[in-house]
Amino acid sequence: MSGWLAVAGLGPGSAELITPEVSAVLAEATDIVGYGPYVERVPLQEHQVRHQTDNRQEISRAEDALRLAAAGHKVVVVSSGDPGVFAMAAALFEALEAGDSDWCSLDIRILPGISAMLAASARAGAPLGHDFCCINLSDNLKPWSLIEKRLRLSAQADFAMAFYNPRSKARPEGFVRALEILREACGPDRIIIFARAVYTEQESIRITTLAEATPEMADMRTLVIVGSTQTRLIPFTGRSSEKSSGQSWCYTPRSAS
Amino acid sequence: MSGWLAVAGLGPGSAELITPEVSAVLAEATDIVGYGPYVERVPLQEHQVRHQTDNRQEISRAEDALRLAAAGHKVVVVSSGDPGVFAMAAALFEALEAGDSDWCSLDIRILPGISAMLAASARAGAPLGHDFCCINLSDNLKPWSLIEKRLRLSAQADFAMAFYNPRSKARPEGFVRALEILREACGPDRIIIFARAVYTEQESIRITTLAEATPEMADMRTLVIVGSTQTRLIPFTGRSSEKSSGQSWCYTPRSAS
Repeated sequence: MSGWLAVAGLGPGSAELITPEVSAVLAEATDIVGYGPYVERVPLQEHQVRHQTDNRQEISRAEDALRLAAAGHKVVVVSSGDPGVFAMAAALFEALEAGDSDWCSLDIRILPGISAMLAASARAGAPLGHDFCCINLSDNLKPWSLIEKRLRLSAQADFAMAFYNPRSKARPEGFVRALEILREACGPDRIIIFARAVYTEQESIRITTLAEATPEMADMRTLVIVGSTQTRLIPFTGRSSEKSSGQSWCYTPRSAS
Repeated sequence: MSGWLAVAGLGPGSAELITPEVSAVLAEATDIVGYGPYVERVPLQEHQVRHQTDNRQEISRAEDALRLAAAGHKVVVVSSGDPGVFAMAAALFEALEAGDSDWCSLDIRILPGISAMLAASARAGAPLGHDFCCINLSDNLKPWSLIEKRLRLSAQADFAMAFYNPRSKARPEGFVRALEILREACGPDRIIIFARAVYTEQESIRITTLAEATPEMADMRTLVIVGSTQTRLIPFTGRSSEKSSGQSWCYTPRSAS
């Protein structure tokens, strides 16, 4: 059996953030599997079959990929960002564990990518420069009470916090509640960053405070970062391709007391 | 003034994880600044000046880089992993804030890289597939009591945990104490991963439990991941270039109750 399966991270949106490792494995693949918009980011190659599935079909997508690899195909499952952070790698292992026991002998590799929080942090400055946590705010796969508990404990730990999937169309009230909890736990002056569609033409980086933040500042393409008590701003006074005068750098110093 | 400054992440060790964005900026630079072993990872180019400094000289290194950029040089500060995660980006902004006010108009970019936790997680499976936190275990720049507090709150939040700089030569007792706290807070059966020198020829991935873990399993080249209550193993029954039969995949499912 010469099949293999790689779960590859495409980074946040731009080809300039796809690692050479991922590009090489995409060139070797016979089959590309993934959520439609991610598969479309892969340059089309002759003799390569593309299997595009809907969002939220992660487990059946993973099963399809495992079946193809078991049948001898060279399969790449593509994921946005890093596959190991709220993405396809965990879904793949869930399907592997629940599925055909022969799958456990397959040649499987997880190939890291630039996760949205790293790209968003870089665009804003260095808000994750000290200890931080990373929470998926979607309550599709966990109770909302657990999210609330984690928000409060993270504030108590004085972590900077990166939030994935802050606001779904189906359940926008979650993020309203999250902002209330954060205001209560961190105070109104705490810095919050809304980094939308980083490394795409639609990129926008908005840095404000919890007092000024509104739920509408986030959608499903937004990565939200809340600073720690130490997170601070440096006004940018120049002019560059990415920033104009009056915007600020946001960073969290390495030291804390 | 045509100078600029980029802080670029070289990833954990292999050229196949350096993004095209970082490679492009390294090719354009007139000056490469960084800790010796990281500068040595950059392919040598004619007419490019290399400024190698010792470890722990982050602020003076950042000041040197800012001075060069202000004088019109095209400067890349190189960082291992991602520059925004316990690396040079925060140090750069500390130097910027404390330094010459003209520096605030410089064209500065932070270029993300594959952070050690993402590479380590990929090699082990997907242990960071659900909510997690990321803590620098070095007490060089913060009191040990804060580290202890964060370990206990993270266990209470049931985060998976990624630890950078787990064990320094100068103060090995910190990691001894961290393991004691984790055993107490998470129990002896909790999964712990020691991922050493990932993506280099010296790579080793050891997956064990807190009961079996010893401080000597970590050094400064090790990224340590402790699972949540949900983190689990899948025995690998095949043979691949990276794994042999009897080793396991480690992952954290996307759902929690």
